[in-house]
Order: sequence, then C-alpha cells, then structure tokens
Amino acid sequence: MSVHGKQMRLGAFFMIPGHHVAAWRHPEAASADLMKLDFYKKLAATAERGKFDMIFLADGYAVSEKFPSALRHTVHTRPEPFTLLSALAAVTERIGLAATVSTTYNEPFHVARKFASLDHLSGGRAAWNVVTSNSEAEALNFSKDRHLQHDLRYGRAREFVDVVTGLWDSWEDEALVVDKETGIFLDSDKVHALDHKGEWFAVRGPLNIARPPQGHPVVIQAGSSESGKELAAETAEVIFTAWQTLAEAQAFYSDVKGRLARYGRSPDDLKIMPGVYPIIGRTEEEAEEKRELLRELIPEPAGVALLSSLISFDLSPYPVDGPLPELPQLKDVNGGKSRFQLLKDLAEREGLTIRGLYRRIAGARGHREIHGTPERIADQLEEWFRSGAADGFNIMPPFLPGGLDDFVELVVPELQRRGLFRTEYEGTTLREHLGLRRPLSRFGKQGQGQALVSSQ
Amino acid sequence: MSVHGKQMRLGAFFMIPGHHVAAWRHPEAASADLMKLDFYKKLAATAERGKFDMIFLADGYAVSEKFPSALRHTVHTRPEPFTLLSALAAVTERIGLAATVSTTYNEPFHVARKFASLDHLSGGRAAWNVVTSNSEAEALNFSKDRHLQHDLRYGRAREFVDVVTGLWDSWEDEALVVDKETGIFLDSDKVHALDHKGEWFAVRGPLNIARPPQGHPVVIQAGSSESGKELAAETAEVIFTAWQTLAEAQAFYSDVKGRLARYGRSPDDLKIMPGVYPIIGRTEEEAEEKRELLRELIPEPAGVALLSSLISFDLSPYPVDGPLPELPQLKDVNGGKSRFQLLKDLAEREGLTIRGLYRRIAGARGHREIHGTPERIADQLEEWFRSGAADGFNIMPPFLPGGLDDFVELVVPELQRRGLFRTEYEGTTLREHLGLRRPLSRFGKQGQGQALVSSQ
Repeated sequence: MSVHGKQMRLGAFFMIPGHHVAAWRHPEAASADLMKLDFYKKLAATAERGKFDMIFLADGYAVSEKFPSALRHTVHTRPEPFTLLSALAAVTERIGLAATVSTTYNEPFHVARKFASLDHLSGGRAAWNVVTSNSEAEALNFSKDRHLQHDLRYGRAREFVDVVTGLWDSWEDEALVVDKETGIFLDSDKVHALDHKGEWFAVRGPLNIARPPQGHPVVIQAGSSESGKELAAETAEVIFTAWQTLAEAQAFYSDVKGRLARYGRSPDDLKIMPGVYPIIGRTEEEAEEKRELLRELIPEPAGVALLSSLISFDLSPYPVDGPLPELPQLKDVNGGKSRFQLLKDLAEREGLTIRGLYRRIAGARGHREIHGTPERIADQLEEWFRSGAADGFNIMPPFLPGGLDDFVELVVPELQRRGLFRTEYEGTTLREHLGLRRPLSRFGKQGQGQALVSSQ
Repeated sequence: MSVHGKQMRLGAFFMIPGHHVAAWRHPEAASADLMKLDFYKKLAATAERGKFDMIFLADGYAVSEKFPSALRHTVHTRPEPFTLLSALAAVTERIGLAATVSTTYNEPFHVARKFASLDHLSGGRAAWNVVTSNSEAEALNFSKDRHLQHDLRYGRAREFVDVVTGLWDSWEDEALVVDKETGIFLDSDKVHALDHKGEWFAVRGPLNIARPPQGHPVVIQAGSSESGKELAAETAEVIFTAWQTLAEAQAFYSDVKGRLARYGRSPDDLKIMPGVYPIIGRTEEEAEEKRELLRELIPEPAGVALLSSLISFDLSPYPVDGPLPELPQLKDVNGGKSRFQLLKDLAEREGLTIRGLYRRIAGARGHREIHGTPERIADQLEEWFRSGAADGFNIMPPFLPGGLDDFVELVVPELQRRGLFRTEYEGTTLREHLGLRRPLSRFGKQGQGQALVSSQ
C-alpha cells in the first residue's frame, strides 16, 4: 500500500470522555459536552488530521447496577455508536468509521442493512466490530432471563456473521442498471435470495440495499478466547486485543495468523491491532504526573466496581488494601475469559492489592499502558510493530480531547519521521487504508446463489 | 407559537428519488445518486431553507419479490433512514428529523436508545414514526414464518411505545450532576429501573443514555384503522394520514381529536398532517404536462405491482384494461385496511380500470394529489387547513430534487405571503416548531418509579 515500506495501522478508540475510569474528573476533560455533537465533530477532525485509519467506538446495552455504590461516580450516558458515526460520516472525508454491534441481542438483517447504509453514505468507510454480550443487566433489557453461555454466544455469533456477509453479497456489484430510457432499474438476475436456514436464524433476503462500496464493510473482532480466536481466523479482518507483554502479544499474533490458512486466507488478510493506552508528556516527569493525577481522581467504589466487572467477580466484600481473594476457575467464568486471566496474572506478577490493581488498570482496563515522551511512546509502538506482535494499534486516549490532541501533535509526527505511518491518505476507503482486499460476492459467477426471480 | 395567527405545519417526505413509482425515470431525477450522501445533504439544505418543520422518511425491511415482473422496473435500494437522518443531523441546524421504525421486528431498548441519541446529537430534533410491519417478505427476513395479524401487531405496538417512552423517562432531567470536584457524576436517586413486564416485553432499564432534550422525541403515527386511531389518540403527537376528499379528512380529524380527552389530552396535543402529493407548474398547462409525463413513464408491471401491494391483493392475473375484480371483505384484509378501502372507493367513484387506477395513484399512492400553479396549490392547502381537515401537511414531491425545489421556491413564499407559514424558525427543537408541550418524566416527583439503587 505504500512506497515507504510496511506501515502501521492506527485506530482512534473514542471512549467518552476518556478511557480512564476517572477521566471525566480530569480538569481538561469535556465532561459537560459528552452528549453534544460539536464535541465529537472536533475529535473526528483531530483524528482525521492525524491520518488515523479509523475511529473506533465500543458499546453496551445497559447501565450496570451490579455495584450501586459506583453508579454515581461513573459515566453511564453516551451517544449510541451508530447514530454518532453516521453523523460523523457527514463531516469527515477519509477516516474509517468502526462501530461495535453485538450479535447477541440484534437481528442480522438490521445489522447488515445499517452497515451497508453507512458504507454507502460514507463512500466505503464503515467497519463492524463484532462482539457478543455477556452481562446479566443486558439480558434483562431484552426480555431474557439470563445471558447466553459463552459457547452459545459464539455459535450464534458465527452464524450471525455468515448471514450478514451473505446479505451484503445478495446484490452483485453489477446489479444496478438505472437505465431511464429502457425503464430497467436493476438486473434481477443479479439480486439473490439468501434463503438462510440455520440453528439461530432463518433469513430469506435479499437485503433492500445495493452491495456496499467496500463489498463488505470491514469486520473487526475482539475475542481472544479459543472460540474467539477461531471465529476471528474464519471471519475477522481486524482483531482488537489486549496484551500486557511483548511475549504474550507475539504468541497470540503467530497463533492467530497460523490459523488463517485452514480457512483459505493469507496472513495479510487479517490485521492484529492491540489496544494501547498512552500517557504522553513532553518529559518523563510530566507523563508520570499525568498518570498520578488520574489515579488520584479514582473514587474507590468506582475502582472496585470496574475491576469486579472486568473479572466478572464481585470484589466489594473484600478489604480494598488486601490481596485478590480466591477466584473461580477459568472454565467457570462466563464473561471475558481472556481478560479474567490477564488481570489475575498481572496481580500475581506485580503483587498488587485490590486497590493497587484497580489503580494500575483503571485507564487501560487490561490493555497495554505506555507512558513517557513522544519518542519513548513511538519506541514502544515500534518495538511491538517490528517484532511480530502487532500490525498496528488501537489508541485509547486517557481523557478527551487532550489525550488525542497529544497523540496527534506529538506522537504521529514522530512515527511519520520514522517512516512507520502515512503522512497522507492514499486511498479513499477503509479497506484501502488497512491494505485489505475487497471481497467478491458469494453470488458472483462462481457463486451458488439463485437469482431472486427464478427462486420464487 | 406565532404572532401571525395559526400556522401550518409542513413535513418534507423524502421518498427517493421521488414519490411517483416512475420518478427514477424522470429526466431531472437524480437516480444515479440515490446512495450518495451529497444528494441528501442538498435536499436537506433545501428543506431547511424552506423552513419545513421536519424531514420525514418511510421504511421497510424487504425487497418484495411478490411481483417479480416489476422487480427490475422499481427502486429497491435506499439508505436506511436512521443512518441517513443521523448524517443529516450533522449538516443541518433547525429542521426536525423523523424516521420510521417498525415495532414488529425491533427491540424497544434499541429503538428508545437510538432516538434518544439522535435527539441529543441534533439538539432536540428527533421524531419517531411508529409503524407496524405487515408483509410476508419482511417476516421472512426475521426468522418468522409469517407476519403478525392486525390486532396482534397493534397490541405489540401499544406495549412497545409504552416501553420506549418509559425508557426515555428513566433518567429524570436533573439526573446529571457532573461535579468534578466531589466526584459525583449522576444523582442515582434520579435514574430509575423501568421493571416493565408485559405480554410482549420484559425490560428492566434504565436506558444507558440521559433523558433526551425534548423529553420524548416526537411520536408520529400513520394508522387510520380503528386500532390505529385509538393507539394514536393515546400515544401519538402527529398523525400522518391519507385522505382523498375534504369530507373524509374532516370526519377523521374530528373523530381523532374527539378521542383525546379520554386519555387526558387536549386537541392541541396532536397534530394531524395528511400526505399531499403536489405537481407544481408555473401554469396549469405545465402542471398537467408534468403529470402526464410521469404517467407515461410507468412500466405496466410496476404499476400493477404497486397497486397490488397497496391493496394486499394480486392483480396480475386480471386484464389491465378491465375493472378491479371482486375483492376480499375488509375484515379479511391483513394489511393496511384503510388504504384498501380508500383505493376501492376511488376506483368505484371514478369508474377506473386497473390501469386507470394505477396511473391515478402511482405518485400519491392513495394520498391526496393536487396540481396546478403555486397559487392553486396554496389554495388547496389553505382550504383543508382552514376547514378543520388538517393542522398541516406531509409534502410528497413527485421526483427529487426538482419537486422539492419547486415547492420551496414557488409554494412556500405564497403560503408565507398569506401568513400561513413561518418565515423563520422561532424555536430550536422540533417540539417548538410543532407547538407541542415537552412531556414530564413519569418518574418525576409525582412518578411511581423507584430509584435504581434502592430497587436492587
């Protein structure tokens, strides 16, 4: 994709008003504006000025009231990602737009359609971060008694992704004719019923929207469990992961890239982009002060609740200055399994108390935290990038807008000087930014599908 | 709302590339651009220049393959309304944004959340057009064997609207505190579980988004059947209807306004806005030529299919130049019952053949068609407005962008001269444009709800 050698991919992960659990208390955080579009317009303009590949938004479907004492101290209102990214499509030109949408409480037809729509309206810049929902509080908002067990969630997710990509394919690229003279709007031999009948879904199709400019909007996944890795190897084009150490990240990278061949895919067909939480100072001392300031702002109940929720285990009955209590076996955890293991290992490795652990992870939430001068930040990104641990990074600013401004003004120029990152967008679609092939429709010449008219 | 006496409300109903079934063949229709955001940005700017109360978008969840011979002649790809309106929120300032979302194949939590999000991001300009889905083709895209019968659809719709408005209320207006100093982000006594358990849904709540700026985004409905009218009297703030004659429209207007009192509502709490399909010429002859041109462009299979779909009865086996065949009894129609009756009456009243009827309704699809000079158009709007038939109109341009340009450049100034329509927006929210009160939260001081923390 570039004449300058292999380039790093960067996502701008907007968690509002910052990734740190106490970000909203930061003196520079725009906490009063977090429901206002103008705030996001400015963030998006900054990210696009920084030539990021994409803006990335997380999502969830509940206010968790599991830890009521933390409720009043934490941010529980944010724009719905799809609404927000659609709005930002109208005021940006090149940057990709990645929205998280769960497969657990949605319908594939709606999901296929809204991503296709965003892809059309943005000129080929949409990406879908596929997740499963694992909290009881979410289940209770969708007329369910409890959430799905881990394996069922992944079975449903696999079928869901298959239906969505099938619907994106249901119009071949050449289906639109739009000949005013003859009165032919579309070639009905190139619009196909999907006729999907599976364990979870029965979806007739076709989609009521033409094939997206990217063929398929880019598919992102985040699971790092065994089921998650296998699903990613089969269907993902970007993986967003959380690793603390180079060795772990390298092992994951080669594991997942090694699984691609069995699905007829090449290592370049999937980009691995671990999350990175950067605290940037013009000097090492300034970075350290910034880190300490955020730690001091954490209300204790919010820290304990965050940690409890990340490991799916209630820590509130235990002394906050004592060690982690005996935790369940990994196989009994019905939540993010890899995050559970990672945090347990981290506490053991560094001998942390509950308070020590939540202070340690209250920003990056299990992702890699790096801090220091712009050169030092760039060194740390370059190290992972050059040693088979990452194709790029999802950047998680501690607070907004300041944390993003720092990265764009101080770190991006350093990466560009090193020839590691683009100085201008070369393509127009997110696939082009990421160096991903445009997929063919499964209903093309070699496809198995029937035309809609003949299948009635 | 105005010092100039009672003002008309106007919606700009964008059906792309126009309301006429052959609009896409019109020489001036932007048929190649119908998936491009720039096209819609220009339309929205025109509507806002015309001081319309709102942009209105219809929706559906299937390519209907019921009439395969029509498939190739008609437009089956359009942006998903919510994606599109969210994008337009970023490039407009005042105009309302009304999206159609069905209660039949959606979840109330998602619907409440995305309208709340759009309302925040647009500064109080969102509206929800509540519809039920009644086609077999839609059911088959959502893992259902068949669609719901009429009464069940309305039962589900009533409960759906109740859950959505409850979720909008689940944060009281004063719930957000955002005090950086004390570390209190929200007042958890003012964030409430909904604990809804009904026939169709069990939804715990609260919503994970603060109360919308409008309290509730404006609720629009379109049903004109007995169940539709009753649901509207209970829950709607705008009704979008289809009437051919002044007498029918007056009867409907007084019927529905008369039902409001039993729900503790006043006549001003609900605005009735029939659809109007205007063909505007600088002279009567020019208007007539425009109408005839569109009629000539209708491919016969598309005309027959449109009519069949509007009356939920397949007309393709019958001679196109013969009369309508014997149709089912109204009680056996599982589709839009009022539209069925309206078209049957119209064919009888005007003695139309199948071809005559589809040529007659291929633009307005059962709504009122008016044509002529700008003065004549304004006369016809004014007559209904002044004689108790309408509080305003949903304007349905035959083709786009030309049909909207004509209305804004020629008809709006005429309405303004007559003191019937605003010359500038006076408020900032859609409720203010429409003259609707901002609803109180059901969980306010007199409300029955428990605070989230104490309800654990």
